[in-house]
Amino acid sequence: MSTHEPKNPDYAIDITRGFEAQAFMETLGATLEHVEPGLVEVHAPHDAALTQQIGALHAGATTALVDTACGFAALTLAPSGYDVLSVEFKVDLLRPALGARYIARGEVLKAGRTLCRTRGSLFAVDASGEERVVAVMSATMILVNRSA
Amino acid sequence: MSTHEPKNPDYAIDITRGFEAQAFMETLGATLEHVEPGLVEVHAPHDAALTQQIGALHAGATTALVDTACGFAALTLAPSGYDVLSVEFKVDLLRPALGARYIARGEVLKAGRTLCRTRGSLFAVDASGEERVVAVMSATMILVNRSA
Amino acid sequence: MSTHEPKNPDYAIDITRGFEAQAFMETLGATLEHVEPGLVEVHAPHDAALTQQIGALHAGATTALVDTACGFAALTLAPSGYDVLSVEFKVDLLRPALGARYIARGEVLKAGRTLCRTRGSLFAVDASGEERVVAVMSATMILVNRSA
Amino acid sequence: MSTHEPKNPDYAIDITRGFEAQAFMETLGATLEHVEPGLVEVHAPHDAALTQQIGALHAGATTALVDTACGFAALTLAPSGYDVLSVEFKVDLLRPALGARYIARGEVLKAGRTLCRTRGSLFAVDASGEERVVAVMSATMILVNRSA
Repeated sequence: MSTHEPKNPDYAIDITRGFEAQAFMETLGATLEHVEPGLVEVHAPHDAALTQQIGALHAGATTALVDTACGFAALTLAPSGYDVLSVEFKVDLLRPALGARYIARGEVLKAGRTLCRTRGSLFAVDASGEERVVAVMSATMILVNRSA
Repeated sequence: MSTHEPKNPDYAIDITRGFEAQAFMETLGATLEHVEPGLVEVHAPHDAALTQQIGALHAGATTALVDTACGFAALTLAPSGYDVLSVEFKVDLLRPALGARYIARGEVLKAGRTLCRTRGSLFAVDASGEERVVAVMSATMILVNRSA
Repeated sequence: MSTHEPKNPDYAIDITRGFEAQAFMETLGATLEHVEPGLVEVHAPHDAALTQQIGALHAGATTALVDTACGFAALTLAPSGYDVLSVEFKVDLLRPALGARYIARGEVLKAGRTLCRTRGSLFAVDASGEERVVAVMSATMILVNRSA
Repeated sequence: MSTHEPKNPDYAIDITRGFEAQAFMETLGATLEHVEPGLVEVHAPHDAALTQQIGALHAGATTALVDTACGFAALTLAPSGYDVLSVEFKVDLLRPALGARYIARGEVLKAGRTLCRTRGSLFAVDASGEERVVAVMSATMILVNRSA
């Protein structure tokens, strides 16, 4: 992973605002916990309202958390005035997401002028604080000029 | 798409129960609307609580609906006593999901003894009833013996 | 699938030239067999030099044929002077590719200004002419201005 | 990545035989260069016969090399008497594959009884020996009992 230089000096402010503008993150109980150039973390507690039939976090909730982390990781490296949209992603669900809380980590693999290639992971954290990867994602993001 | 023969005569009952056991579907306001061998539809109204920064359905909510439709499509063809888990999926987000309501359709491409290969779509339905595809998914499901 | 309007009146000539410029297609024995706006077919005979350990077409050869069909399907709808590059693809291998010959079909799902979203299939054709789908692909293509 | 314990004491012999049984690897000029539990490398020189229209390695050749590395990485951890088949993979093409030679690296993310989850990369190596990642893959492999 190379060092990433942000083009937008206010990227952290823009990401905080962007995160707050995603109502679904509030529905998931998710919080923005770490923002640095090329890397973003989103955390969420376990919540029975987000589960599937065996009590694990639903794959859609897993996806929401990691996609959001990847999207904002891309936004850390976008020019000012740009938004980021998900073009596509693949998610590999490695084991049931059964934790006391979850950490979604998104990072930039390659930041281009139009596309940003990212990858992410969801970690389940148990009551003792031990982390275990439960899903990995690869996602393509597109930069969109907000004034266009 | 070939004709699919269900192995479990009670597949429709099992799917209704399985759907009700997914708390996340209730959080999304989703309902099970169509079940036939190899094909399942899940519907949901638009809800501001499920949106991202431009007011469209969040990609994670889109994924949740289509993954659920694909998983239950796989379950229509599973033997009695089996559950279905998502192994992986890819989602192509073709345009922002902006509708009055949404239809997620999942169908079986190939039902094997261990894996079931599926594909799905999310359609945004506007106030006049017009449907537009906003996302497509390909998903691999695995059959798991519930008593194992 | 909506009707597709080509922007480049010489798209068929450009695709024939583009196909001939892909040396790998000759290595695979592949030929360009059908070109229409939004849809391209590439055919290839079975060849023992392209197989994996059980004598089926190698997944990489399968991918090469379908990716090429998808890329040229995207090019049918690109403006004059543009080239198409693959951003990413997912391939679902449904069964071993064991045929006398193979048909790769690529089609456009959505043609945008920058990206073109496509999907494709590989069909194995047996000695009697019966076709069977052995793999499906979803692929994102990017349009690149050749003079840029 | 956890430490991987091979179940088949002859895994290295089986992988050498398996690689030699893939005719397509010879067509690509590929060689098996590194085998350890959970990690395999396949190398290939640049060859004009494997290129696309701008002279880079064709995405299908890239896929063939990385898929093969991932499949054999899965096989290092399979029980004796098993074969490995690719279920599906996603490939992110980060930049044109333009090198003097290529290194495909496959590694196991999670080895289960039925499925093996892997990821891989292709590195382009220039004349001075510098490596640059040009593609990444995530792939699901299935273990198949050869005598079944």
